[in-house]
Amino acid sequence: MSTQTMAAEQPSRKQNGQVRQACKVAILGFGTVGSSVAKILCDSMPNVQITHVLNRNVARKRADWMPANVQWTENFDEVLASNADILIELMGGLDPAEHYVRSALAAGKSVATANKKLIGKCGPELGELARQHGCNLLFGAAVAGGVPVIDGLQHGLGGDQLHRLFGILNGTCNFILSRMSEGMPFPQALRKAQELGFAEADPTDDVEGYDARSKLVILARSGLRAEIDPAEIVCKSIVPISPVDFEYAKDLNCTIRQISRLEIVSKKLFASVQPMLVPLASPLANVQGSENIVIVSGKYGGDTVFSGHGAGGNPTAVAVVSDVLAITEGRAGDFGIHHERYVVNGDLVAPQYIRFVVQDRPGIIASIAGALAESGVNLDAVIQRPGHPKSRLTFVITVEPCPASMLANALAQIGTFDFLLEPPLNLQIMEHA
Amino acid sequence: MSTQTMAAEQPSRKQNGQVRQACKVAILGFGTVGSSVAKILCDSMPNVQITHVLNRNVARKRADWMPANVQWTENFDEVLASNADILIELMGGLDPAEHYVRSALAAGKSVATANKKLIGKCGPELGELARQHGCNLLFGAAVAGGVPVIDGLQHGLGGDQLHRLFGILNGTCNFILSRMSEGMPFPQALRKAQELGFAEADPTDDVEGYDARSKLVILARSGLRAEIDPAEIVCKSIVPISPVDFEYAKDLNCTIRQISRLEIVSKKLFASVQPMLVPLASPLANVQGSENIVIVSGKYGGDTVFSGHGAGGNPTAVAVVSDVLAITEGRAGDFGIHHERYVVNGDLVAPQYIRFVVQDRPGIIASIAGALAESGVNLDAVIQRPGHPKSRLTFVITVEPCPASMLANALAQIGTFDFLLEPPLNLQIMEHA
Repeated sequence: MSTQTMAAEQPSRKQNGQVRQACKVAILGFGTVGSSVAKILCDSMPNVQITHVLNRNVARKRADWMPANVQWTENFDEVLASNADILIELMGGLDPAEHYVRSALAAGKSVATANKKLIGKCGPELGELARQHGCNLLFGAAVAGGVPVIDGLQHGLGGDQLHRLFGILNGTCNFILSRMSEGMPFPQALRKAQELGFAEADPTDDVEGYDARSKLVILARSGLRAEIDPAEIVCKSIVPISPVDFEYAKDLNCTIRQISRLEIVSKKLFASVQPMLVPLASPLANVQGSENIVIVSGKYGGDTVFSGHGAGGNPTAVAVVSDVLAITEGRAGDFGIHHERYVVNGDLVAPQYIRFVVQDRPGIIASIAGALAESGVNLDAVIQRPGHPKSRLTFVITVEPCPASMLANALAQIGTFDFLLEPPLNLQIMEHA
Repeated sequence: MSTQTMAAEQPSRKQNGQVRQACKVAILGFGTVGSSVAKILCDSMPNVQITHVLNRNVARKRADWMPANVQWTENFDEVLASNADILIELMGGLDPAEHYVRSALAAGKSVATANKKLIGKCGPELGELARQHGCNLLFGAAVAGGVPVIDGLQHGLGGDQLHRLFGILNGTCNFILSRMSEGMPFPQALRKAQELGFAEADPTDDVEGYDARSKLVILARSGLRAEIDPAEIVCKSIVPISPVDFEYAKDLNCTIRQISRLEIVSKKLFASVQPMLVPLASPLANVQGSENIVIVSGKYGGDTVFSGHGAGGNPTAVAVVSDVLAITEGRAGDFGIHHERYVVNGDLVAPQYIRFVVQDRPGIIASIAGALAESGVNLDAVIQRPGHPKSRLTFVITVEPCPASMLANALAQIGTFDFLLEPPLNLQIMEHA
């Protein structure tokens, strides 16, 4: 082989004698990820030229390490009218990102974006727009930051039929739950995450599961070829979890993680984002801090695991730059994927963990067991750690696999019992993975 | 850049209302992987049509579940002269696979192959041939079977600068070492692997590390953009390892795995395939049986992990079919990668484990420690498990990080000591990952 020949092709690849010109990109949104993308492009992609940076109040963003000929602007029309080939959209949210992306694609400019909300909402429609105008739309950074899972599902596992996916897709929740597993209560763990910049001032999107839900819609589409409505995905908050739940989970050889899951069984699609008990032996249990992981199961290839840094400027920028390279090198072709529309079913069958906090008195277990039996739920075990006072007794019941709705019925009845000091907390227990 | 131009290079992609024609493929080699590929294509790829199956003594291969119009042949010229668009090469080895692949590419037919020997030997040259003739060469199945690592390195992490890679790339060795960690001696573990079809009658390529070495060359190229000569990669056998080494490893919170590694430090490339002590907390230690794993470290994205089924008909077939899809959907474009030629340096600096079997007598530790000190090697710990007879005392010395060559000097001197009942076994201890 000849390394000379290969090196000679760089930086402008020859195609049938034609010399490729430097590719021109505009960056929309110059925050943490945007400036990381710019740094990587400047440092190591001589064949990519940054023409514009667009941001609100762009003057305060201007960076002296950027090439002098970059246009700093607040005016999208200027970018749209320019000779930029690719727009890198890192503004997030729908307004004005959606308008910018649609305009770019309609003008035949390719787009690389990290915008999970936008792609979750109208990815296929935007993909079709790109197709019509002979350009590309890539969004590898929209899920799991630097972990190349979108690419892995679409390219590397494209030949399989995937039917199940488990993921830890929200680094903020994983950081908080990792801290809580060491005994830190939720409010302190959240504060710590906010201090370190992992959580926003309003953490609702993260802790309630809405952030992971947007990503799950994109994974359903890219991996399971299923189109689902995010509003239909069951989300459960991590807020009611307390350190005592980690102690009981440990007795069950488990820890607690916010798990995003998808499964197609007999043409039904189940999807949820919720805190679950995860066996300590599972790779999901070993994801620490703000890391992300995705485990997919295919008809032919079995289980495949992707994990790495799910957030942060540089890892997310790697995903963006990889997409830019794929576009410039002609590898961003069309995915000939049938997307089947599914109504989401949230009624997963699983064993469950239920934690009660009660004013102790005789007959409590009998009352609870009776209500469970009446709804058809089979009790598995009663676990009580020492050290809880009778005035605020905390214990756990596990039940055999049953549909979530069946247990909800039982808990609606149990919720009326006057010995309860707070509503029971129930978490599904993961069986696979 | 013009995406229109690039798209136009693809033969049968649906574009602007044009209907995509069925893609025609020929399968060369109809063993376990070949028949799995055919089954997946027949079951789930209506847009791909199998035209030919080529195999020696093809009559005994004919399968009644295959479409009736498939041509079963032993004659490659017939395949080459046919209208097949893509050749799937699953014969393995260099002869006649190399001739077939070169002829196909020169005739403008794309190739998807699982042939690690061929790609390891002349992948870049064959890629150049494909480029010249406007077709594609993909080889996602050549490393780690169903784990989409080639794709992940080239596409998903294409925007990073990778500088380190650890992998478990040989399922046979991992199966044998997993069994040995449960106390089974090497010969029985090998026999078990052979009975289950994981190991060949002659296991040399697996246990000596030559199989993993071919794969490492491909990973160096795809991930670290480094061209290296397989003959320069240090390989150490797993044969001298015995169950007692797993006991001592456990005392050091480690297990033993055949680790393939690459690292670029200050423009030097280190590469080796050898059994190593791996910390139990590492994902590498948790790879069981015939699974494969690759952990890469990038300048920007940090560590990324890929794992799954590294062998077997169906998982490997998924990788092949994914490549076929990428070709038919116009996503198999060119990788504009600088391949830099490196001379492999095998002299890694690492802490080391040395196991001695001796006829006990006073002064042994003093002699060994003296020889180590003379070569500049710092002793870290002496560990001796109870239960070994004085006539065949087995103990372990660990030493602080030192170049492999420095320890080899010391061991050359130690090897002459007459209290040794067998040559000392030394294994590097993994520090990262």
